[in-house]
Amino acid sequence: MTAYTATVTVRLKRGVLDPEAETTKRALERLGFDLEDLRSADRFEIDLEADDADDAAERAGEMAERLLANPTIHDYEVTVDQR
Amino acid sequence: MTAYTATVTVRLKRGVLDPEAETTKRALERLGFDLEDLRSADRFEIDLEADDADDAAERAGEMAERLLANPTIHDYEVTVDQR
Repeated sequence: MTAYTATVTVRLKRGVLDPEAETTKRALERLGFDLEDLRSADRFEIDLEADDADDAAERAGEMAERLLANPTIHDYEVTVDQR
Repeated sequence: MTAYTATVTVRLKRGVLDPEAETTKRALERLGFDLEDLRSADRFEIDLEADDADDAAERAGEMAERLLANPTIHDYEVTVDQR
C-alpha cells in the first residue's frame, strides 16, 4: 500500500447559475479590479492508502459520486499524487 | 493584452480547525470509505486580460489579499494559465 493524496475538484456544470461567484465578481469590480469572469469550485484533498494511483483515483471518484458532488448540477475532476 | 485564467486556491492555515472537512470525512467513513485525512479548500478561477503572466498573477494575488482570503486564517496559492 502506498500513500496518495487525491484531489477532487467539484464545479457547477456549465449553465448552472452561481450567484455566489457573481457576487464575488461584483465585489472585486467594486474594489477596482478588472476581470472578465469568475467561477468558484470546491476542492477536497483526500489522503488515502491505495495499491496504486489508479486504485486511489477510482476510490476518490466514488467518493465524489456518492457524497462530494451532486451529479445533477456538478462536474468533478480527480487528480492523484503520491505523498 | 493576453487572455489568462488565474486560479486562486484558498485553504485554512495549518492548525485552524475545519469542522466542515471533519464532518465530510466522517460521512465518507460512514459510507464505508477508508481515508486518513480530508482537507477542503476554495478555488476561484478568474478570467482576466493582462500584459503577461506575471501581471495576471500579481493582480490575482491582490484579489486574494483584498477579498478572497482572510490572511488571519487562510493561506492562498495562485497559478496562471494562458487561455
